[in-house]
Amino acid sequence: MPEPLPDEGPPSDLVSDVFARDCTSRSAFEDVTAKWASLTLLALHEGGYRFNALRRRVEGVSEKMLSQTLQALERDGFLTREVVTAIPPRVEYALTPLGQRVAGRLRALADLLEEAAPEVERAREEHPGRAR
Amino acid sequence: MPEPLPDEGPPSDLVSDVFARDCTSRSAFEDVTAKWASLTLLALHEGGYRFNALRRRVEGVSEKMLSQTLQALERDGFLTREVVTAIPPRVEYALTPLGQRVAGRLRALADLLEEAAPEVERAREEHPGRAR
Repeated sequence: MPEPLPDEGPPSDLVSDVFARDCTSRSAFEDVTAKWASLTLLALHEGGYRFNALRRRVEGVSEKMLSQTLQALERDGFLTREVVTAIPPRVEYALTPLGQRVAGRLRALADLLEEAAPEVERAREEHPGRAR
Repeated sequence: MPEPLPDEGPPSDLVSDVFARDCTSRSAFEDVTAKWASLTLLALHEGGYRFNALRRRVEGVSEKMLSQTLQALERDGFLTREVVTAIPPRVEYALTPLGQRVAGRLRALADLLEEAAPEVERAREEHPGRAR
């Protein structure tokens, strides 16, 4: 007869699954692939940034969207926000070790798509459907 | 003196850059990281799917969103849509070789986040900011 499950909450080896709507890995996956989050992570993969420099690097992002994106990524533990006491004080953003690993995987995806850009262009030209 | 550039359109070694707003790689990157696109690619990474089965696999997606997502991914050359003449006829979706490579990189990202779910949960609990 199998051992009864101990009565101490969920087992610690519950399997994570990005397809499961209630799984932390799914919301984390959505957070890092969100509209501006991936490019923000790719930028910070190059090194720490101050807010305005980061905003210039992530072409097209508004101040509000970048701010929200940074908050969500900080909350998930992918980046840190450090207030540097100087005159004037400044705020610097940098990836945590986990954020570096996530950004590395996104960089591998970006590398592939940069390399495949001509192939994607050809597919778009040949595609019978309407343009974007 | 350097050779003049040949007069036959842009050089073929133009560098792709996901940060550049007008680059094909940027819109392709946005297409594969779009709200439902990543999960759809991850599902098709497991094998071909018919529409309704795919919709069940990608928990939470509406018919309309899945349909739009599939169109965008087909247009970029990441998947094919095949009408199988049977009774009743059915439509099957499958990744192209390029789509497989893209989905493989997304799978590597998903694996990392599934593994890191406990770490993300801890970060969220410790984060002083408001909940999502």
